Amino acid sequence: MTDVTSPTSRATARAADHASELLARMTLEEKLAQLVGFWDQGDGDAVAPLQGDFAGESTLEAAVQHGLGQLTRVYGTTPVDPVERAAWLWAFQRRLVEETRLGIPALVHEECLTGLAAWRAATFPTPLAWGASFDPDLVHEMAAAIGASMRELGIHQGLAPVLDVVRDPRWGRVEECLGEDPYLVGVLGTSYVTGLQSSGVHATLKHFVGYSASAAGRNFAPVHVGPRELADVLLPPFEMAVLDGGVRSVMNSYAEIDGLPVAADPALLTGLLREQWGFEGTVVADYYSIAFLHHLHDVAGDLADAAGQALGAGIDVELPTGNAYLAPLAEAVRTGRVPEAHVDRAVERVLRQKADLGLLDAAPDDGPPARVDLDTPHHRDVARRLAEESVVLLANDGVLPLAAPPSIALVGPNADRVEAMFGCYAFANHVLPQHPGVPVGIEVATVREALAGELPGAQVRHASGCTVTGDDSAGLAEAVELAAAAAVAVVVVGDQSGLFGRGTSGEGCDTDDLELPGVQRLLVEQVVATGTPTVLVVLSGRPYAIGWALETCAAVVQAFFPGEEGAPAVAGVLSGRVNPSGRLPVTLPRSAGAQPYGYLHPRLGGDVEVSSVATQPALPFGHGLSYTSFEREVVEVADGASTRSGVRVTVRVTNTGDRAGADVVQLYGRDVVASVTRPLAQLLGFRRVVLAPGATALVELDVPPARLAFTGRDGTRVVEPGTLLLWTGTSQPPAGDVHEVDLAGPVHRVGLADRRVTTTRCR
Amino acid sequence: MTDVTSPTSRATARAADHASELLARMTLEEKLAQLVGFWDQGDGDAVAPLQGDFAGESTLEAAVQHGLGQLTRVYGTTPVDPVERAAWLWAFQRRLVEETRLGIPALVHEECLTGLAAWRAATFPTPLAWGASFDPDLVHEMAAAIGASMRELGIHQGLAPVLDVVRDPRWGRVEECLGEDPYLVGVLGTSYVTGLQSSGVHATLKHFVGYSASAAGRNFAPVHVGPRELADVLLPPFEMAVLDGGVRSVMNSYAEIDGLPVAADPALLTGLLREQWGFEGTVVADYYSIAFLHHLHDVAGDLADAAGQALGAGIDVELPTGNAYLAPLAEAVRTGRVPEAHVDRAVERVLRQKADLGLLDAAPDDGPPARVDLDTPHHRDVARRLAEESVVLLANDGVLPLAAPPSIALVGPNADRVEAMFGCYAFANHVLPQHPGVPVGIEVATVREALAGELPGAQVRHASGCTVTGDDSAGLAEAVELAAAAAVAVVVVGDQSGLFGRGTSGEGCDTDDLELPGVQRLLVEQVVATGTPTVLVVLSGRPYAIGWALETCAAVVQAFFPGEEGAPAVAGVLSGRVNPSGRLPVTLPRSAGAQPYGYLHPRLGGDVEVSSVATQPALPFGHGLSYTSFEREVVEVADGASTRSGVRVTVRVTNTGDRAGADVVQLYGRDVVASVTRPLAQLLGFRRVVLAPGATALVELDVPPARLAFTGRDGTRVVEPGTLLLWTGTSQPPAGDVHEVDLAGPVHRVGLADRRVTTTRCR
Repeated sequence: MTDVTSPTSRATARAADHASELLARMTLEEKLAQLVGFWDQGDGDAVAPLQGDFAGESTLEAAVQHGLGQLTRVYGTTPVDPVERAAWLWAFQRRLVEETRLGIPALVHEECLTGLAAWRAATFPTPLAWGASFDPDLVHEMAAAIGASMRELGIHQGLAPVLDVVRDPRWGRVEECLGEDPYLVGVLGTSYVTGLQSSGVHATLKHFVGYSASAAGRNFAPVHVGPRELADVLLPPFEMAVLDGGVRSVMNSYAEIDGLPVAADPALLTGLLREQWGFEGTVVADYYSIAFLHHLHDVAGDLADAAGQALGAGIDVELPTGNAYLAPLAEAVRTGRVPEAHVDRAVERVLRQKADLGLLDAAPDDGPPARVDLDTPHHRDVARRLAEESVVLLANDGVLPLAAPPSIALVGPNADRVEAMFGCYAFANHVLPQHPGVPVGIEVATVREALAGELPGAQVRHASGCTVTGDDSAGLAEAVELAAAAAVAVVVVGDQSGLFGRGTSGEGCDTDDLELPGVQRLLVEQVVATGTPTVLVVLSGRPYAIGWALETCAAVVQAFFPGEEGAPAVAGVLSGRVNPSGRLPVTLPRSAGAQPYGYLHPRLGGDVEVSSVATQPALPFGHGLSYTSFEREVVEVADGASTRSGVRVTVRVTNTGDRAGADVVQLYGRDVVASVTRPLAQLLGFRRVVLAPGATALVELDVPPARLAFTGRDGTRVVEPGTLLLWTGTSQPPAGDVHEVDLAGPVHRVGLADRRVTTTRCR
Repeated sequence: MTDVTSPTSRATARAADHASELLARMTLEEKLAQLVGFWDQGDGDAVAPLQGDFAGESTLEAAVQHGLGQLTRVYGTTPVDPVERAAWLWAFQRRLVEETRLGIPALVHEECLTGLAAWRAATFPTPLAWGASFDPDLVHEMAAAIGASMRELGIHQGLAPVLDVVRDPRWGRVEECLGEDPYLVGVLGTSYVTGLQSSGVHATLKHFVGYSASAAGRNFAPVHVGPRELADVLLPPFEMAVLDGGVRSVMNSYAEIDGLPVAADPALLTGLLREQWGFEGTVVADYYSIAFLHHLHDVAGDLADAAGQALGAGIDVELPTGNAYLAPLAEAVRTGRVPEAHVDRAVERVLRQKADLGLLDAAPDDGPPARVDLDTPHHRDVARRLAEESVVLLANDGVLPLAAPPSIALVGPNADRVEAMFGCYAFANHVLPQHPGVPVGIEVATVREALAGELPGAQVRHASGCTVTGDDSAGLAEAVELAAAAAVAVVVVGDQSGLFGRGTSGEGCDTDDLELPGVQRLLVEQVVATGTPTVLVVLSGRPYAIGWALETCAAVVQAFFPGEEGAPAVAGVLSGRVNPSGRLPVTLPRSAGAQPYGYLHPRLGGDVEVSSVATQPALPFGHGLSYTSFEREVVEVADGASTRSGVRVTVRVTNTGDRAGADVVQLYGRDVVASVTRPLAQLLGFRRVVLAPGATALVELDVPPARLAFTGRDGTRVVEPGTLLLWTGTSQPPAGDVHEVDLAGPVHRVGLADRRVTTTRCR
């Protein structure tokens, strides 16, 4: 792990020398070839926005003539046998080495958000589920396992994690995010980075920056934020992953912020990222985002203009293909519109990255793998643990765990579908919908199958009732009949994830309505109306406005696409084998019309007498129940809390119930008076703790100054002295049990040296 | 008019001398007394946010001990006889002159948005209706009439107009705004300013700045905008009213923008307003907004801190009462926390304003009026014309005008209520709800009464069917029965305006749902279901998501609270006596979940393939039908269009129908490629034209460079060369008939000298 996170190592210095030496020998065409990807799209389509508009622009022959920077999605575009594909890849790389003038292999990148995007590879829970686990160690373990599979297949860079902070649940990509708290996102995201990079695969931060704050949660819509919100909410996870995680690559966001697309913004891509944070890796373009400066943002008159702006701003590599950085950029350099020095700067970074990865070493490779297992027992074990930790019990009147019931009606469109387990970057939902008939390639149970195994004595009768989308309610009657006749009804509803309109959640699948899609609410209401105690299970990519269900259902279980081991995890929670311990990493919203709303708001962002509209969400950020009970108390605040040292808090947590369980101890704070408006609640630290019945743990949470800092009136990051309120529980401040701490000292300007905001909880 | 808009006049110089001389003689208490208002609240309450929390802090005796800066809402707090109140006021002023050491009268301010907020005073349409009229001349005439009444009653300053640009229809104060286009708002707002000031009453710009862009349209919620949006969308109307209108006072907004409350922001209140724009008047606090820095924004530890921040930022006068600027500020000045120079600066501005108003002149006043008529035939005439011009015909299958029908069912909760004619700053809705039994005090017809007069031959049967709010649908059946039996059904629905939860529209009456309030949609749907042709009339303060009604009703008429002559105007449109000519000054929205949305969006703010959510609104900004038809064509673009000179466009408009009517010629443009993202459509000019059947007019629209300018990448305001698309019609670009103009010249930096963006259309 050290070699990839320590860019000042001797190896890196050697790499830099090698890169400079190569650069000096390159023609302009050879340079530009290093700055682009080639994508063999086969018969796959539409796994990237407007992909169809750009397809077929180049042949592989033409593409490699002057060498090649990156190979795009070798495994993740169509369902190909990974071993066969690896053989092709090794041969292709050999050809680059042997048949191009400079003999430089291509860097191979692939998507890997919920696991390597390859056929037959393990599919883990979606990031929102990692957020619900509040478990950075397990995220690290998962990413290391993903990285190992990638390394085995000759992949060098993974396009993950997504560090966008959730700002509006209407956005389709919420499922790809870790939550609505920047610290939670930063800690878990940094764990992913260090995990993946510990396997020798470079991580890529997505999407730098602002993407999640688009107007009304519509994908690509303009982002209306000011510099303070950008600095204090949207940027911190990226800063953590750069400074603490040593990430090797960053991808720009498609967004325009206050009128300027990030892809054309040197202040962010160079000024902040490189000059202030000291980032030395590569900046890669989100797919087609350079061309989009011309085609969608209308800030570039042609592709050459777009190329010049992006390159000048600091995007080194154009992905997935060279639409702007090949012919248009070559022409622009030749005519003097773009300085060749900008090209050289990017090429040098690319070559340094390749050197770091060992791609410039002359030593021959071992050859392609003869067989691979991308879904090993270890993968399954990590997937299972993460799924189990991520299920959130939202409400329970005692019906759960199911006490060996005589009969269960299992209804709902997600009760018996494997696709309901996965997010939009899972191979099953990302690629396979375009290849009907191709099997999922990994073992995946549905909730129905898992529940049957979990409760072998129970009579489980099943009917879907309706589909996820559409207004056909013809099947409701059958489901309601089953429910009426059963001791307990379990209704499994939620999303079908997909890309660009092929789902109800996922990239391009936004909504202006936070009700359950289709007629699913009607199904639940009719089942509830039978009088049979109803357990609602939501398998979704975003939180829905299901406040009504909390009132009427006997229990509500929320799982954010829980992955290949998700069904057993959900069934285990229903049976009681698994004691639920997930916590909401996002607010459970009130309604679509109440958006945007997040827990990180100042007083005037919440309920106030001066507005007739209530804001109180259905459930607060951090909420989650257990089958046991916990008492938590702030028992000590260490002396010497100050603007310079931060504050150290000890929380005592006791399992006061009669079975073992895990609690996520959460510490929240509020800066009572500050020079700018501050949130009424802010997550300052957290730790997952497993406790036997009756057991107690003392959890020490160290809150560094950077975690208390914010952008003051003069635009610099400061910690201000004064009263800090502290509590444990959820983001909803309790009526009592709030500790007042006096943060002593002068206003403290937080410099780069003490900007690191992760605690020891994160490697 | 010249003396109040020419601050460099000799009178002003004399005023400045007088002010300085007075200041030199004042004690600290006397100075502070000049910086605050006193409010005799009588038995009125809750016409200002959290008013109850601040009431009764001082007696009049105590308040005037050291003199008094302002008298707050002498006429607009409770229903008092204006003549009696004037007698009290004259006596009070005499007492200040004779019994205080310095003998300075108080400046008297009052609300006057939809007419002077006094009992028995004329009540005009709400500002959103002025927006719909697109008639700056008539707005000027109205404001001059309002000013004349104020002057008669000894009022010196009016707290209007509201120049907030509509950004979210969920906000309750949308009715107080002029529209969602900054140019429309600026032109009409500047007309109001020059109109009011032509009567010798100082206008006050509200609310500087950002208020309308609060998150989710919730009153007082944080504003998430960046500097470019602030400069290009929210600030232009204020700049126009300062530079072109010579406004004499400005009120800060309650908002925090990107974390900093405007009340504490010197960059806006002093840097921009005074140093850049050269504003020399007074800045007054929105009611309690200085105390709110402590109580609501949590950026001030106490009231002294709040006072110091607000005074330092540039708020000269605390309204409505001296909560922070008296004892807390005195203490802060004495202990050195606040420099007395800041106090002196504010006092000097206040005294200069009083001198300008003649308040420092020794000459005795004429005495109070023996009688007043605040609702003269001239007021009624202006109110009638504005109401008639503001009614927007949204849809019409030919049912309108009503062809002397044998029977009309007139239903809906707004069919027979005078309150439905008025906004929340109208005396009837602002004050009278707290005084049950007190008559409205002016003659106001309901739609039912006006329609009976308009169609004397018709049999009009009436039932309300339901109330505006609430879920009681018991009365629907009766209304539906009437509709079923009639030849035509007219359903009058909409809002009840009020303050702080006392209405469905108005200050503090926000919504998270853009459906018609209560069960009104159900009423309309049930009436439509009878098969009787249904005319929907919406009397509301905001545009609602009534796309469904456009499909199902025979005609839809939208009137934004049309004032005391509103019912005859609406009835006249129904009968055909009035040919409708209003145009939508706001987008008719798609849904609450699609917000925020406005027409001024770049490509990615509209429908795009990369999002599954459609954005197309129910009807576009600028839409409005007539009983005649118009053909409009851009017939000439003058040679020499350039970044320095702008562009001059001639539109030919012809009345191609068989009756006289008025068209609002609208010119829109789109900057095809720019350095930052630009809207797909932007209003560049407009003119209201009255045409006889068959008549043609050539309308010349001069688009000055400032109207084409925007904030470029370097933060300065520029006009960039390149292709400009131009069309006439509505904000929805037509399929054909788009003109391409090449804007020649270099990038032009727009300086203060050519920043004026109003054309000759606006005085």
